[in-house]
Amino acid sequence: MIKAGIVGGTGYTGVELLRLLAPRSDISIEVITSRELSGVAVCEEFPNLRGHLDIAFSEPDVERLAACDVVFYATPHAVAMKTAAELLGRGVRIIDLSADYRLRDVENWERWYKVRHESPELVSEAVYGLPEVHRDRIREAKLVAVPGCYPTAVQLGFLPLLESGLVDTGSLIADAKSGVSGAGRKAATRALLCEASESMSAYGVSGHRHLPEIEQGLREANGDRSVNLTFIPHLTPMIRGIHATLYSRPTAAVEAEHLQSLFEQRYADEPFVDVLPGGQVPATRNVKTSNHCQMAVQWLPDSGVIVVLSVIDNLVKGASGQAVQNMNIMFGLDERAGLDQVPVLL
Amino acid sequence: MIKAGIVGGTGYTGVELLRLLAPRSDISIEVITSRELSGVAVCEEFPNLRGHLDIAFSEPDVERLAACDVVFYATPHAVAMKTAAELLGRGVRIIDLSADYRLRDVENWERWYKVRHESPELVSEAVYGLPEVHRDRIREAKLVAVPGCYPTAVQLGFLPLLESGLVDTGSLIADAKSGVSGAGRKAATRALLCEASESMSAYGVSGHRHLPEIEQGLREANGDRSVNLTFIPHLTPMIRGIHATLYSRPTAAVEAEHLQSLFEQRYADEPFVDVLPGGQVPATRNVKTSNHCQMAVQWLPDSGVIVVLSVIDNLVKGASGQAVQNMNIMFGLDERAGLDQVPVLL
Amino acid sequence: MIKAGIVGGTGYTGVELLRLLAPRSDISIEVITSRELSGVAVCEEFPNLRGHLDIAFSEPDVERLAACDVVFYATPHAVAMKTAAELLGRGVRIIDLSADYRLRDVENWERWYKVRHESPELVSEAVYGLPEVHRDRIREAKLVAVPGCYPTAVQLGFLPLLESGLVDTGSLIADAKSGVSGAGRKAATRALLCEASESMSAYGVSGHRHLPEIEQGLREANGDRSVNLTFIPHLTPMIRGIHATLYSRPTAAVEAEHLQSLFEQRYADEPFVDVLPGGQVPATRNVKTSNHCQMAVQWLPDSGVIVVLSVIDNLVKGASGQAVQNMNIMFGLDERAGLDQVPVLL
Amino acid sequence: MIKAGIVGGTGYTGVELLRLLAPRSDISIEVITSRELSGVAVCEEFPNLRGHLDIAFSEPDVERLAACDVVFYATPHAVAMKTAAELLGRGVRIIDLSADYRLRDVENWERWYKVRHESPELVSEAVYGLPEVHRDRIREAKLVAVPGCYPTAVQLGFLPLLESGLVDTGSLIADAKSGVSGAGRKAATRALLCEASESMSAYGVSGHRHLPEIEQGLREANGDRSVNLTFIPHLTPMIRGIHATLYSRPTAAVEAEHLQSLFEQRYADEPFVDVLPGGQVPATRNVKTSNHCQMAVQWLPDSGVIVVLSVIDNLVKGASGQAVQNMNIMFGLDERAGLDQVPVLL
Repeated sequence: MIKAGIVGGTGYTGVELLRLLAPRSDISIEVITSRELSGVAVCEEFPNLRGHLDIAFSEPDVERLAACDVVFYATPHAVAMKTAAELLGRGVRIIDLSADYRLRDVENWERWYKVRHESPELVSEAVYGLPEVHRDRIREAKLVAVPGCYPTAVQLGFLPLLESGLVDTGSLIADAKSGVSGAGRKAATRALLCEASESMSAYGVSGHRHLPEIEQGLREANGDRSVNLTFIPHLTPMIRGIHATLYSRPTAAVEAEHLQSLFEQRYADEPFVDVLPGGQVPATRNVKTSNHCQMAVQWLPDSGVIVVLSVIDNLVKGASGQAVQNMNIMFGLDERAGLDQVPVLL
Repeated sequence: MIKAGIVGGTGYTGVELLRLLAPRSDISIEVITSRELSGVAVCEEFPNLRGHLDIAFSEPDVERLAACDVVFYATPHAVAMKTAAELLGRGVRIIDLSADYRLRDVENWERWYKVRHESPELVSEAVYGLPEVHRDRIREAKLVAVPGCYPTAVQLGFLPLLESGLVDTGSLIADAKSGVSGAGRKAATRALLCEASESMSAYGVSGHRHLPEIEQGLREANGDRSVNLTFIPHLTPMIRGIHATLYSRPTAAVEAEHLQSLFEQRYADEPFVDVLPGGQVPATRNVKTSNHCQMAVQWLPDSGVIVVLSVIDNLVKGASGQAVQNMNIMFGLDERAGLDQVPVLL
Repeated sequence: MIKAGIVGGTGYTGVELLRLLAPRSDISIEVITSRELSGVAVCEEFPNLRGHLDIAFSEPDVERLAACDVVFYATPHAVAMKTAAELLGRGVRIIDLSADYRLRDVENWERWYKVRHESPELVSEAVYGLPEVHRDRIREAKLVAVPGCYPTAVQLGFLPLLESGLVDTGSLIADAKSGVSGAGRKAATRALLCEASESMSAYGVSGHRHLPEIEQGLREANGDRSVNLTFIPHLTPMIRGIHATLYSRPTAAVEAEHLQSLFEQRYADEPFVDVLPGGQVPATRNVKTSNHCQMAVQWLPDSGVIVVLSVIDNLVKGASGQAVQNMNIMFGLDERAGLDQVPVLL
Repeated sequence: MIKAGIVGGTGYTGVELLRLLAPRSDISIEVITSRELSGVAVCEEFPNLRGHLDIAFSEPDVERLAACDVVFYATPHAVAMKTAAELLGRGVRIIDLSADYRLRDVENWERWYKVRHESPELVSEAVYGLPEVHRDRIREAKLVAVPGCYPTAVQLGFLPLLESGLVDTGSLIADAKSGVSGAGRKAATRALLCEASESMSAYGVSGHRHLPEIEQGLREANGDRSVNLTFIPHLTPMIRGIHATLYSRPTAAVEAEHLQSLFEQRYADEPFVDVLPGGQVPATRNVKTSNHCQMAVQWLPDSGVIVVLSVIDNLVKGASGQAVQNMNIMFGLDERAGLDQVPVLL
């Protein structure tokens, strides 16, 4: 039985972690922290958990967390960096869903997140938790930085092209659309139903925090040569889902069949990446509530562009599901454990 | 291994059955019929099933269905009545999600459904598949009529009051709100996103087909004395969920505590009915994708009215989940098997 | 040219007032106050107003407001009560969209709103701004209390029945469904798209602030005899609209034709109440963005219940549109001025 | 008084035309045709028009249409081409909202629309009704082809860049997102609320009918030199709105200020194109129900890409509003007549 703790259990990634972990017989959820709701039963705040989880939120308490085998940080950035070191020192393995340990360049991190990093020494030790790239290192990791939602969808879509050196890495474009849950559970005007439904808009056009994270991953796939990416995220009137539409240009002649088989082979052994048959296109609802990334690649000979369509559930493969996938790998469990439900199409 | 067949696999109750059955290791889905999509892979029509189900739709074929242990009819009304007798005769157990065997009064059925019943002799043999009332009979049933979505939410909410003789059965009111999936997958103008979202309206005010079904169940709970029910359904701009708001008046003095405990005791042993603590109110999202009925009862002393709020997911407890629950009971399995996922709150 | 001021211009009733007033050539919007956004151009906060309104929010300032002919309070309760007296004293006519002057019983108001009323002496002077009842008094009013959204839909639906003494006033039920904009623009968790969409729930079951307001109006229609009303509001996953489903029982024999003609006659001269032909039912989208109340009455002989379906746009007839209608009456303008757009069906 | 007829009044562009035309005192709607609903009052099908329009649908009848000054075709493609010639011959001016006369190359039209064109001789006579480009020709036009929704948003966004020769026309990308009303009112499964809400997906990836139309317009703006455009449309879970995100690369050094002023100057005299101040981004709700195109241009120096964000209401500027704008120009009316409402932000 693995003893798990969750720091910051009141946000959307928190309740999603609970949805995935509560039914498991091999995991025991020991602690769920919340400063504001300390003492309140978790299932009072999240009534979907009634009958599934009988525990109350508690004040963050290092002693209780230190008694866990693994601690998830489902917090905003700049929280994990304060206490991760102590927990690691006491033998707890850490899975951080926030951004604190995603960027290897601490200076760059501080520039984008506008705060001083309080445990920069852990950054090099942290493993970037994209199993499709770093599975072996995740197995041994003490500290995993779970990728962001956009970075997951965009990297998985571009990886086969970059790893094979097939495309011009000087003109990549990622036009991404995200459901509103990506904005978190914080009560912000722009996330109100009356403001966010029945509308579509871009944001972060001049620079979104996920840009450096994606660039880092793509550069790595590109043999450590930097890439040029234009990344425009859009707020979409739905709860869950990311749809990334990726544009690139081949550096040599390509054929549709070759592209298709390149993608199929790249992900042939991946339990959570599903390359659609040629001609089909994904929809975010195909993976709703599931840990799968579904994608399609299409060659447009008239315009000379390769289009990749990559969809995930931002709360699952883009956050809590990927966190669980990492945990499964770290603890030597079946990587699919607890993540094998059929997506809720409607 | 139980061999299951599904007649009419292209509607919403069909794909929901598949979502619930496909992951199970004790069930083998042998046949899924569809006249229009015969030969097409099921996961091409429903891409959420990719990797979970490798079977194609096939023409309805009695031979293949007769080889199953159980056959689900996920069809409109007036389909099951044509072939159920033959399958029963060949030893197949039948779970009918349609209305064909719900009303014990065949004449009344023909009046509401405006078609001649083709197997009236089976009506008396059929068991009404509301486990909270008929669990023992379901265990032995050859033919189960799965209750309608509104009837499930309304009956479960009224049962404790009627069984205890607490309320005036001459003035019951059920104001019910349903998500659009209740209208089925048929392409009808009123179910288009552009027509059904951002609007609320009543329908079937002068008489909805679920009225006689609810009345039949309430009469039974009322010691076979008829009840007077006003039932107004409303189309609500969401995919899933039914919220029934039930109004009744006590025939003698009541107290909130007594009501609360009446409801708690009535459902104390029910795995899929959850009576909320006093003061809490349910929301349809609390049970989204789950087989639970969540309810609250409140006594309004100023107006002398008892209000019951009862919510279900119309596609699960209101259709396919309840069908699976019935199957579990019929085959002596754990009643919760395959139905224990945490609801998808968001 | 009527000079108008708006106190509290950043909420949904504020921006809706601006939508209705900005295009008018007979109204000049002189002041729009907001403490937080003072100095910010209104059309920066509400980009739909670009090209329609060239003014900035300003600090609340009695001098500037006193220079207006009419001041609208589009504020939460307990704001208008602080400054209305001074403005009235300086000859400004006031239209208060908040609750401060709606209840004639100040003690009752204080009980429901849990705050001391700071200008109780104005309460008796205020006219309840439901033109269908108080048109003559509105004409002369200095201070109008615009009815709440639920009270508008519910009262208009019940009025013909109560005024004609046709129904048992001891067992009225109003089951009301409101879009999320009724909760205002305040960033509250329950109004987030992720919490409020794809769900339906009741709230305020044990007592909603609009209950005493509705009871006051119905009592008046009932010849000042008190009525017994059960009122259950529900949060509905859409932006705009209220659907009130009203249940009552006749005290003597009724006929459908008679009811229909009763309703048609009651509202024959009303520009903003539309009684549908027999057999049709309203939908909130039929009146979206418009000042109309659309309704239908139906007699259910089997259960002995009269059902009235009454729909409004909560932000228009339920707030800002009704405020403008009141202004038109107060200033001797065409009552329809600025309120004659075709509803936006989709 | 201009006498107007509408062919095909039961679709979304039809009811939107009626919303815009019904309140006008200078337009008389004489005929609205519908084969299926002939004889039915228009306001029975579209109850938002009650009190605004007292006319019934009628069978298409050339005599009655020929008595009009202007006839709008709000039909699918391949309808107008059958009767336009006769009406033109009888002196009626025609505004075709369908695709029949948009492409000047008839062969290309037949390839994309897979049907033989029945009045190819009219194609060269037809004026492409994008007033921002062809205002002078529209004034004299007998036959106007109203641009498609995507083509309107995409062309308006690219025009300043192409007309000024600023960008590489060999690598244009238009990633476009449309609300579901773009799919029309036909009852199609993919447009059902249960299928289209809570999901995002691309479609027409290998070729959408609006592609040749956009290319034709951009080629013209490019001095009749062909352009290379990648165009990917996406179905977005909302009723109205198109958000086009346009990517291009400058051929020489650019500065943000220069781009901003280029756009502002290009549209300085346009009543329905609104260039946002630098740093602001548009949202489709800013123009909901209105004829405005709102746009922003942003220079991303790090990636060397110019991003244009262009939003319209697909049913207004993308169809019926633009049709009315064309009518206003053709008949010498104020171009803004009937199109000056404030957008419905929420």
